[in-house]
Amino acid sequence: MVWEFNYQEAAIFLEEGENNDKYTTHPRTQDSVPAYLLAHSTWMYVFDLFATLLILLLALCEGEQSVSYLYLPVGVHGSLELFALLILGLELGIKMRWLGLQRFFRHKRTLVKFFTLLVMLSEAITVLIRQKNHVRVTRALRPLFVIDTHYCKGIRRISRQILQTMPAIMEMILLLLFFMLIFSILGEYHKSEFFFQYFITIQESFISLFVLLTTANYPDVMMEVYANSRGYAIFFIIYMSLELYFLMNLFLAVVYDTFSGLEKDKLKKLFFHKRTGCQYAFRLLVTKFHSDSMKLKHFVGMMGYFKPKKSRKEVYLMFKSMNRNKTGTLDQEEFYQLYEMCDIKWEIRCDDYIWSSSFKQPFKKIFKGLNWFVNWRWFDYFVYLVIAANFIWIFAETVMLSVNQVNVRGYNFPITWQSVVFVSIYFVEAVLKILGKGPKVYFKPGWDLFDFLVTFVSMVGLLGELFDNTFYYITVLRPFRLLRLFKIKRSYRDVLGTFFMLFSRLASLAGVIILLYYFFAVIGMEAFRGYDLTNCCKNTSVEDFYRKDNNSVIQGYYYLNDFDNILISGVTLFELTVVNNWFIIMDGFAYHISEWTRIYFMIFYLVMMIVMTIVVAFILELFLFRIQYRRKMHLEDIDDHERHRVEVTLSEEELHMCKNSDSVLTGHFIKTQTQSPDILLPYVFKGERTRSKEDFSLRMYSEEVKSWIAEEKKQRRGVITD
Amino acid sequence: MVWEFNYQEAAIFLEEGENNDKYTTHPRTQDSVPAYLLAHSTWMYVFDLFATLLILLLALCEGEQSVSYLYLPVGVHGSLELFALLILGLELGIKMRWLGLQRFFRHKRTLVKFFTLLVMLSEAITVLIRQKNHVRVTRALRPLFVIDTHYCKGIRRISRQILQTMPAIMEMILLLLFFMLIFSILGEYHKSEFFFQYFITIQESFISLFVLLTTANYPDVMMEVYANSRGYAIFFIIYMSLELYFLMNLFLAVVYDTFSGLEKDKLKKLFFHKRTGCQYAFRLLVTKFHSDSMKLKHFVGMMGYFKPKKSRKEVYLMFKSMNRNKTGTLDQEEFYQLYEMCDIKWEIRCDDYIWSSSFKQPFKKIFKGLNWFVNWRWFDYFVYLVIAANFIWIFAETVMLSVNQVNVRGYNFPITWQSVVFVSIYFVEAVLKILGKGPKVYFKPGWDLFDFLVTFVSMVGLLGELFDNTFYYITVLRPFRLLRLFKIKRSYRDVLGTFFMLFSRLASLAGVIILLYYFFAVIGMEAFRGYDLTNCCKNTSVEDFYRKDNNSVIQGYYYLNDFDNILISGVTLFELTVVNNWFIIMDGFAYHISEWTRIYFMIFYLVMMIVMTIVVAFILELFLFRIQYRRKMHLEDIDDHERHRVEVTLSEEELHMCKNSDSVLTGHFIKTQTQSPDILLPYVFKGERTRSKEDFSLRMYSEEVKSWIAEEKKQRRGVITD
Ligand code: NA
Ligand code: NA
Repeated sequence: MVWEFNYQEAAIFLEEGENNDKYTTHPRTQDSVPAYLLAHSTWMYVFDLFATLLILLLALCEGEQSVSYLYLPVGVHGSLELFALLILGLELGIKMRWLGLQRFFRHKRTLVKFFTLLVMLSEAITVLIRQKNHVRVTRALRPLFVIDTHYCKGIRRISRQILQTMPAIMEMILLLLFFMLIFSILGEYHKSEFFFQYFITIQESFISLFVLLTTANYPDVMMEVYANSRGYAIFFIIYMSLELYFLMNLFLAVVYDTFSGLEKDKLKKLFFHKRTGCQYAFRLLVTKFHSDSMKLKHFVGMMGYFKPKKSRKEVYLMFKSMNRNKTGTLDQEEFYQLYEMCDIKWEIRCDDYIWSSSFKQPFKKIFKGLNWFVNWRWFDYFVYLVIAANFIWIFAETVMLSVNQVNVRGYNFPITWQSVVFVSIYFVEAVLKILGKGPKVYFKPGWDLFDFLVTFVSMVGLLGELFDNTFYYITVLRPFRLLRLFKIKRSYRDVLGTFFMLFSRLASLAGVIILLYYFFAVIGMEAFRGYDLTNCCKNTSVEDFYRKDNNSVIQGYYYLNDFDNILISGVTLFELTVVNNWFIIMDGFAYHISEWTRIYFMIFYLVMMIVMTIVVAFILELFLFRIQYRRKMHLEDIDDHERHRVEVTLSEEELHMCKNSDSVLTGHFIKTQTQSPDILLPYVFKGERTRSKEDFSLRMYSEEVKSWIAEEKKQRRGVITD
Repeated sequence: MVWEFNYQEAAIFLEEGENNDKYTTHPRTQDSVPAYLLAHSTWMYVFDLFATLLILLLALCEGEQSVSYLYLPVGVHGSLELFALLILGLELGIKMRWLGLQRFFRHKRTLVKFFTLLVMLSEAITVLIRQKNHVRVTRALRPLFVIDTHYCKGIRRISRQILQTMPAIMEMILLLLFFMLIFSILGEYHKSEFFFQYFITIQESFISLFVLLTTANYPDVMMEVYANSRGYAIFFIIYMSLELYFLMNLFLAVVYDTFSGLEKDKLKKLFFHKRTGCQYAFRLLVTKFHSDSMKLKHFVGMMGYFKPKKSRKEVYLMFKSMNRNKTGTLDQEEFYQLYEMCDIKWEIRCDDYIWSSSFKQPFKKIFKGLNWFVNWRWFDYFVYLVIAANFIWIFAETVMLSVNQVNVRGYNFPITWQSVVFVSIYFVEAVLKILGKGPKVYFKPGWDLFDFLVTFVSMVGLLGELFDNTFYYITVLRPFRLLRLFKIKRSYRDVLGTFFMLFSRLASLAGVIILLYYFFAVIGMEAFRGYDLTNCCKNTSVEDFYRKDNNSVIQGYYYLNDFDNILISGVTLFELTVVNNWFIIMDGFAYHISEWTRIYFMIFYLVMMIVMTIVVAFILELFLFRIQYRRKMHLEDIDDHERHRVEVTLSEEELHMCKNSDSVLTGHFIKTQTQSPDILLPYVFKGERTRSKEDFSLRMYSEEVKSWIAEEKKQRRGVITD
C-alpha cells in the first residue's frame, strides 16, 4: 500500500511537470489528494471551460445589450450567470481545500480569480433581485476566467509573455510620445502663420500628431498649410520619417528581440521544470538500496496513475525504448525521456506496409497498384492541370457575369457541364486516394485532408447550384478549390505547412486578441451605448461622414459604427484596429459626448499597436525559426523532421508477457537479450508522434541545452558540497 | 625598376580588393596602367560625382518643369546637361582604354551606363538644336549614373541586395494577388445583393480590394453593404486578417530572412575578395627563393603606391604590428591583416595622458582638475536636471501661448531670463568640457559633439529671439535641446548610439529611396503635368476632395497633389508612400485622365511596399545584430567594442630610422628584439580605428569564419593536387 501512495504522488509530480504547475502547490498531505485529483480531473476541466464560455457568451444576450435575436430577459440571463459563477466558485472551493488557505492566498492568479468572482457574484445577485441591469463595467473582467482555464494554457502563456515584454514596450512608447510632444510644440509655434485648423491648441496639436502617427489623417492634416506654403511639407515628412519609419520599426525590433528572448527563457524554464518533476517522481519510485535504478514494476505502477489509459503493451514498449542502456531498469537520465515518450503511438509494422497489405488476393494486388498510382508524380501533375483549368474557367465566368452586369441574386445559375466535370474529377481523385492510401493515412491532418475538405465543400456547392437560390450562398466556396494550387511550389508549401504546424499557437494569439476585444467592447457598450451619432458633429470636419440624407445617393454611414451590442462593438473595434479613418469614429464620440472619450480610443489604439506588433514579432519568430531550423539541419523540407520516430523489437516471450494480463511484467528479458544477442526479436514496433515547437527548439539549440544541463549539474553538486 | 612595376601592380590588386572591383577587370598590360590610375584617381571620382549630381539636379530647373525660382532657359540647362554628359563620356572613354573593348562590353554595369549615355547625349543635342524640351522619359534613368559612382558604393550594394531579394518577394506578391483575385470573385458574386458601388465590375472589385490591402479605403468600402446587412462585415474581417495581418507579416518574414541571408553571403564574398587581393599582391612582393616571406623594403615600396600619404613611421608601425611572429618579414597569414591596419591612426601615448599633460604648472594641475570635474558623475546629473527643468519650462510656456491664443507671428518674444539662464548653463558646460577633455577628444563624433551642436543651435536661437522676427524661425530648434535627455537611460542610449553607428548604411538606404522617387517623379511629370484637377471628378465619391470653393471654409485641396515640378512630385509621392488616402489621388487622375493611369500608382505602391518592407528588414537586422552581438560577447555596452585598438613599442634606434628619411627601412630590429628581450622599448604607440559593421560581423561569426577559411584552404589544396 505504501508503494501505491508513492505511485500516486509520483504521478502527481509528473502531471505538475506536464502542466507547468508550481511544485509549491503540490498536495502536501494524503488528505488533500482526493481534492487535488478532483480538481485535475477531465470532468472538472470541462465544467470549468463550460462555465467560463457560458459567462463570456452571456454578453450576446444580456437584456438591452443583446444581439436582437438572442435576447434573454433579465431573470434568465441573471440565473445563467449565477449558475456559471457557482460552478467556478465550487471549483475554487475544491482548490482551497487541496491547497490549504495559506497557499491558496499566496497564488496570485487564484487570488485575482477569487476576488473577481466575489464581485461578480454580488453583482449577479443584485441584478436578479432588482430585475434590472445596472452599469456593470466589471463584466470587462470576464476574460480573466479564460486565462485560468486548463485548456487555455496557450492563451495564458502568451498573455504572460506580453506582460513581460511591457517594460521594453513602454520605453519605446515613451520615446514615441516624447517626439510627438516636441513636434506638437513645434507645430504650436507655427500654427498661426495662417489659419491652421489641426493645430489650434497644444492639445489639438498633440492629438493631430497622434493620429498622424497612425497615418489616418494624412495628407489632410497637411493640405491646408501646404496650400499656403508648399515648404511646410518638410515638417510632416521629417515627422513621419522619424516616427513612422524609424521609431516604429525600432519598436518592432525591440519587441521582437524581447519577445524571442522570452521564448528561449521560457523554453529553458519549461525544460527544467519537467526535469524537476522527473527527479521528484524518480525518488519516489526507487528503493533506498537501489536509489539509482527504477524497476519496471514501479514504472508500471506509476503509469497506472499518470496515464491510466495506456495498455500493458504500450507501457512495456515505452519502458524498453527508454531503457537505452538495456539494463532492465531505468536510471535518472533515462527517466528524463518520459514526457517525450508519453505521446508516442505504437504500431506493429513492416517497411512497405500499406493498409491493404492484409487483404486477400487479388484485392491486395489491385490496391497495391492503386497505391502506386496515386503516389505517381504524373497523377499529381494531371490534377494540378485540372485545378489550373478550373481557375481560369471560374475567372472567365466571373468576368463574363461582371461584363454583362448580370444581377447575380436573380440570376438562375445553370449547372454548366464544366462545373460538373471539374467536381467529378476531384471526387474521383479523392476516392482513388482514399482507396490507395487507406483512410487512416488519407485522413491524417495534412494536405490530403485539406484536399478532401475542399472537394467536399465543392460538392456541397454544386448541390447548392442544383437547388438554385436556396443554397446560393455556398457559391462563395467555389474559388477555394484553387487553394490546392499552393502545393506545387516549395516555398508556398512551406507557408501553408508552417501555418498548419503552428496553428495552435496562432490560435492562442487570436484568443488573446478576442479577449482584449471583449474587454474593450464591454467598456464601450457601457460607456457609449444609446448615443445616436446620426447627423451629429455639425460644423466640424467630420460632419460629412455622419450625414444621413434620404435624398442623396452618397451617405456618410459612420453613425453605424456604434457599440449597440457586442458583435457590433467587435466590428467597430476592428475598424479601430485597422486604424484607417479611426479618428473619424473618435471625433464623432468626442464631439457628441465629451472630449474625454478620446482616452478610450487612444488607449485602444496603443494596446492594439502593441498587440499587432507582437503579432508581427510572433509570426516573424515562428517563420524565421522554421527557416533557420531547416538551414541548420540542412533539410530540404522540415516535414521530414515533423515526426519523432522510435523502433522497438520484442521477442515472442515479451509479447506473450504483455498480452497475458495475469503474468507479472518484468524487465529481465531486456537484460538477457543484451547478454545473448542471438535471441530472436521478430516483432518490430514503430512508434511515432508529432514534434511540437518545443521539441524543435530543443533540437535547434542542442548545444546550449547541453551547457544548461552541465551548469545545472554543477549547481546541484555545489549545493551538495556546501 | 622591375620591382617598381610589381609594387604598382600589387597596389592595384589591393585597391581592387578594397573597392570590391572584379579582378577580371585588372589592367593586363603595362600600357593600360596609366589609364587605370587616371580612372581611379580622386580627381576623377570627384568629377564623376559632380557630373552625376549636376545631371540629377538639372531636374530642378529644366524649363517648364522647373521649380519656379530655379528656372533656367532651354539653352542653359541643355548646355549644362551636355557638359555633364561629356564628362561622364570622357570617363567612360578612359575606362574603355584601360579595359580594352572586349572586357568593356562584358561588364554589365558599364554597358548599361554606356547605352544610357548614348541615348541621353543624342536627346540633349536634339533639345539644344530644337531649343525646346520634348517628352523625355529617359530622364528617369539618370539615377543609374549614381549607382556607378565611386562614392555611392553603399547605394550600389543595397540596390543589388534588393534585386537579389526580388524572386522571394515576387512569390509572396503573387500569393497576395492570388487571394485578392479570389476575394474579388467572391465580392463579385455578392455585389448585386444591394447596390454596391465599390464592386460593380470585377476590375473595380479588384481595385477596391487592392486599395483595401493598404487599408486606405477602410471602412468606407464596407459601410454601404454594412448598412444593409451587418453580417457582411465578416467578409472584410476575413480578408483583412488573411491579407494584412497574416500574409503581409509573412511577407516581412520572408524578406527579412532573404535579406539577412544575403548580408551573410555578402560578408563571406567580401572577406574572400579581400583575401584574394592580398594573395595576388603577396605573390608580387616576394622573391622566387623566399616565396613565403615579404621584406619590409618591398612592403614600403608597395605602400608608396597603395597609400602614398602614409608617413615612413606609420608604415613601419603598421609593419611591426602586423608582424606577429616577430620574424622581421611578413608571411601570407600576417599580410591578410593589411586592410584592418590601413585605417589605423597612430599616436604616442601614456596611460593617463590628457591633452593638457604637456602644459606647464600650474595650468597642468588646473586642467587636470577640470578633467576630473567634467568626468564626475554628479556634474552630469546636474546637467540632466537642468535639461529636465528646461523641458518643463518650454512645455509650460507653449501651453500658456496656446491657452492665451497668442498669434505667435505677431508676438514679440520677450527674452525671458529663464531662456538666458538655461542657455548660459549649457554654454558654460560646453566650455568646461572643451577645456577639461581637450578639443580633440571633445569634438570626436559622439555624444559630446551632439551636445555641442545642440548648445550652439540653442545659442543661435537665443540670438534669434534677440533680433526679434528676423530670426524667428530658429525658435523651431529650441525643443531639440531636450534630445540630451536620452543619454540618461541605457536602452535609449543604445537606440541613438546604433543610429550614429549605422548612419552611413541608413543614409545609403535613404539614397536608394530618393533615387526611386526621382525615377517615378520624372515619369509622373512627363505623364501628368499640365492637368489641373481643381473641381474635377464631379459625381464621383472623391468629388469633395477636389472641390475648390472660395465661399466655403472647408476645402478639398487634393488638387494640390500634382506633378508640376520635381519637388512637388516628391511630396505627392511621399503621400502615396504613406498610403493613407492614396487612392483619392489615384482616383483623381484615373477619372480625369484615364483609367490606365492607375497602373502608375499601383506599381508605385507595390515598389514602395517592397522598399518599405526592406527598410523594416534592414532596421530589424541592424538592431538585432547589435543586441545579439552584445549578448554573445557579454558586453554591457557595445560602445566598448566600437574601436579597434593596437599597441606597438619602438626602440630608440627604430624611431631614429623612421624619422631619418635618408636611412633605409629594415625589419632586422624586430628580429633582434625577439632574440634579446632586454632591449629597451621606451616609445609606446597606440593605434585606433572605428570598427565597421563588417568587423563586428566577422567577430560575431568568428566560428563560421574559421570554417570558411578551412574550407577554402582545402579547396585550394585540392586544386593543387588535381
Ligand atoms: Na493606413
Ligand atoms: Na490609413
